[in-house]
Amino acid sequence: MTLEITRIAQHLQGELEGDATLSLRGMAEISAAQADQLCFAESEQYLEALRASHAGAVIVPLDFPALAGKVLIRVANPRLGFIRAMELFAPDHGFSGVHPSAVVAKSADLGEGVGIGPNVVVEEGAVIGAGACIRAGAYIGAGAVVGADTDIGPGVSILHDCRIGERCLLHPGVCIGADGYGFRWLEDHHHKIPQLGRVVVEDDVEIGANSCIDRATLGETRIGAGTKLDNLVHIAHNNRVGRHVIMTALVGIAGSSEIGDRVVLAGQAGVIDHVKLGDDVQVMAKSLVTKDIPARSTIWGIPARPMARAMKQLANLTRLPGLLRRVQDQQAQIDALQARISELERSG
Amino acid sequence: MTLEITRIAQHLQGELEGDATLSLRGMAEISAAQADQLCFAESEQYLEALRASHAGAVIVPLDFPALAGKVLIRVANPRLGFIRAMELFAPDHGFSGVHPSAVVAKSADLGEGVGIGPNVVVEEGAVIGAGACIRAGAYIGAGAVVGADTDIGPGVSILHDCRIGERCLLHPGVCIGADGYGFRWLEDHHHKIPQLGRVVVEDDVEIGANSCIDRATLGETRIGAGTKLDNLVHIAHNNRVGRHVIMTALVGIAGSSEIGDRVVLAGQAGVIDHVKLGDDVQVMAKSLVTKDIPARSTIWGIPARPMARAMKQLANLTRLPGLLRRVQDQQAQIDALQARISELERSG
Amino acid sequence: MTLEITRIAQHLQGELEGDATLSLRGMAEISAAQADQLCFAESEQYLEALRASHAGAVIVPLDFPALAGKVLIRVANPRLGFIRAMELFAPDHGFSGVHPSAVVAKSADLGEGVGIGPNVVVEEGAVIGAGACIRAGAYIGAGAVVGADTDIGPGVSILHDCRIGERCLLHPGVCIGADGYGFRWLEDHHHKIPQLGRVVVEDDVEIGANSCIDRATLGETRIGAGTKLDNLVHIAHNNRVGRHVIMTALVGIAGSSEIGDRVVLAGQAGVIDHVKLGDDVQVMAKSLVTKDIPARSTIWGIPARPMARAMKQLANLTRLPGLLRRVQDQQAQIDALQARISELERSG
Repeated sequence: MTLEITRIAQHLQGELEGDATLSLRGMAEISAAQADQLCFAESEQYLEALRASHAGAVIVPLDFPALAGKVLIRVANPRLGFIRAMELFAPDHGFSGVHPSAVVAKSADLGEGVGIGPNVVVEEGAVIGAGACIRAGAYIGAGAVVGADTDIGPGVSILHDCRIGERCLLHPGVCIGADGYGFRWLEDHHHKIPQLGRVVVEDDVEIGANSCIDRATLGETRIGAGTKLDNLVHIAHNNRVGRHVIMTALVGIAGSSEIGDRVVLAGQAGVIDHVKLGDDVQVMAKSLVTKDIPARSTIWGIPARPMARAMKQLANLTRLPGLLRRVQDQQAQIDALQARISELERSG
Repeated sequence: MTLEITRIAQHLQGELEGDATLSLRGMAEISAAQADQLCFAESEQYLEALRASHAGAVIVPLDFPALAGKVLIRVANPRLGFIRAMELFAPDHGFSGVHPSAVVAKSADLGEGVGIGPNVVVEEGAVIGAGACIRAGAYIGAGAVVGADTDIGPGVSILHDCRIGERCLLHPGVCIGADGYGFRWLEDHHHKIPQLGRVVVEDDVEIGANSCIDRATLGETRIGAGTKLDNLVHIAHNNRVGRHVIMTALVGIAGSSEIGDRVVLAGQAGVIDHVKLGDDVQVMAKSLVTKDIPARSTIWGIPARPMARAMKQLANLTRLPGLLRRVQDQQAQIDALQARISELERSG
Repeated sequence: MTLEITRIAQHLQGELEGDATLSLRGMAEISAAQADQLCFAESEQYLEALRASHAGAVIVPLDFPALAGKVLIRVANPRLGFIRAMELFAPDHGFSGVHPSAVVAKSADLGEGVGIGPNVVVEEGAVIGAGACIRAGAYIGAGAVVGADTDIGPGVSILHDCRIGERCLLHPGVCIGADGYGFRWLEDHHHKIPQLGRVVVEDDVEIGANSCIDRATLGETRIGAGTKLDNLVHIAHNNRVGRHVIMTALVGIAGSSEIGDRVVLAGQAGVIDHVKLGDDVQVMAKSLVTKDIPARSTIWGIPARPMARAMKQLANLTRLPGLLRRVQDQQAQIDALQARISELERSG
């Protein structure tokens, strides 16, 4: 794939400086970029690195100095400009039409321009919105809904009656709507509690590979608009996850919890059932959240506690050996005083 | 789906009170229930909530007061009655027959009433018990056995020679029988140890989406009857998991360990290899079990230790800042005493 | 499957002692082995166990005593001999030819002897090396490359442009090349950063079931030759994982980190982004690596610190209750001294 530098500059509404006939094959970081590649520099701090770079073109701030032998695109925000340029280079893997090997129920409703890949199964009453792509081997259960322009990766399962919003992106192996994990002990065995609810994923949600979101026992498990889940994330039944939430890989949320808007859960963090995290809470990696957390808190640890306190406790732990020595030393001082007082008492 | 209230009452062997002509569309919690929905109340404590609820019908204890405008079903155990009623409302997604797109080996043995979904692959010598459902895109390896009335979800892989019991439920993406993780360092590389054993899953086991159970090196990895695994659980080779065990999401069990009956492992807990957990052990969330644990223990932490001790240590940690101050203060006291004794000694 | 004992002895270049006409059905540990099975003993320590065993044949060291009623195969390294014998018993599940239900793009390049299983999808421009097997329902994206003699399990997804080396083994449900988890907050939402890079998996790599390796934002995510990943492992974008690395189940590596050669990460360990682990680092189970780690270190804990220090801190934690008591006791001693000094001062 090759793009004219003029097209890129135009797309970024940037100011082009240098050889306007340049064609680019792709993008890279300063140190790795070649003559047919574009990189970016956020400030003059990168001037030396740029001089040493083989990059043919650079996105720079408006007030950046001229640079011999490189084409510059001047923009207000070079990092954002770089992302916008990446969008131009991103391959379009969209497709439309129904592959002959797909198995689509008669009662399924396919919107305009929908793409149904090879070996896809779409069950009775499912609805696929206009422009959505369902990729190879994915499964769309009975009565499930996939919103317009949503992209469902290979091998994804969306089970019956679940709803996926518009412009969502589900990576391979995602499972939406498996039964919530609910049992009741009856005499001598775990008796299954039927899981009659569903999953609702709102618009603009991205879900990483092999992540799982369980259907509610009754009602809904809900993922708010704009939320982004990484790979291998587990969301149990009846959770309500807010909007624009971030959960990185291997995070697990137990049942019936409420995660506020813009909450961030770092890798391998966990949240127990029936707790509530306020808006903008930040949970550091590997933490275990065991109770309600007020909005805007940053927490860490097992169990999770305010970051400053957790750090303090960690520091205190390293002071323990010194403390043990000090207490031993004080005992020696006390013993010595004791001896001297006894001596005084005797001589008194 | 609509059910007559009389049918529900009969199913629960409950005492119906009120409009016997009511039809219900579904079930919900007290606060969410509508006029065509059924809820439940465990005690009179919920009387006010019920009066405010729109629910058309309620499952209540035998001695519950009358309630104007609501149909009551009186039973001995309302919570259990509610679960039994949910079973009536649960949609039946079972099916039978072999979909034309399925690829079933000639030597495979399909029991009566078996359902084989679209794009399913059943290899040579596999045996599918009567009434079992193998859903879209699942893979049943050569010589594998699936018991009667077992439900295998979309995209599940059951590899060669593994056995799944009767009435099991495997959610999408489960992998049974991948090679155990076994290598031996030979000079300059990890040499693979062949994994010649299999996995045996006993009856009435449920396995959550994308969970993995590895085949044994030799012999079996075994999951006991009635055990329930949540999503994204990992069971390594040669483990023996007891009966009626509970493992919630993201639990990992390393190789050759033994998990007793009715053990509970909470989310993200881990167990190292070659240890033994006695019956009824409870492992709290995120714990790491590093040694044998006697029956009936409740343990927590990294490494896991008896719950009471772990809680005590946690409390002690919060007392550290006070302790540090106190030791500092004692030093001041000792110094003051020292000065006074010196004064006494001088004046003596 | 049955093997002549002579063939096994020959394969191991071992010295056969006893009935050379014996045929064996398989292998087992000493205690479980039957008359038609082979076991091994590393030293004379196992002599009594062997006498009690039903095993028909045993692999033993060169200087092992004779043993009535059992066939012996004498070799220099019995454990390694046992592994080599297991290789003889390992079933060959390889196959060749393209199943009629597979969907293979015209421009895909299939090497000699390639096996393409039922319902496999191979997209435009993909290259499958000689002798590779792509099993049921796997997906090979456009321009992806699978090396010679590599085995791709059922339901695996290898997305566009990713490269898998030779002699690799990918277990079911593995996902290679999903988008890296990259977003930038723009005013009121997380804006997706296109992920234009790829994944490169070098030769002789094994990847466990349902593990995920994300494509790089730019450039590559790379897994070094001979590395072995267990089930449910997450490797984020732009990581560089060295050669002969071991990662057991549920390990997660955040983005842009560098993992040296022969590093070992035990179960549920995590590594944050942008850190560097030197060669031969060992990370104990459930640790969180938060900074660069020098080569050959063994580390543990959250955050991970040198093993000896982590163990010491843990021990100190158990000494806290004693310390608290001791400080309380010292206060009593100080108070008593205080009283005695006051008395002396008064009387002086």
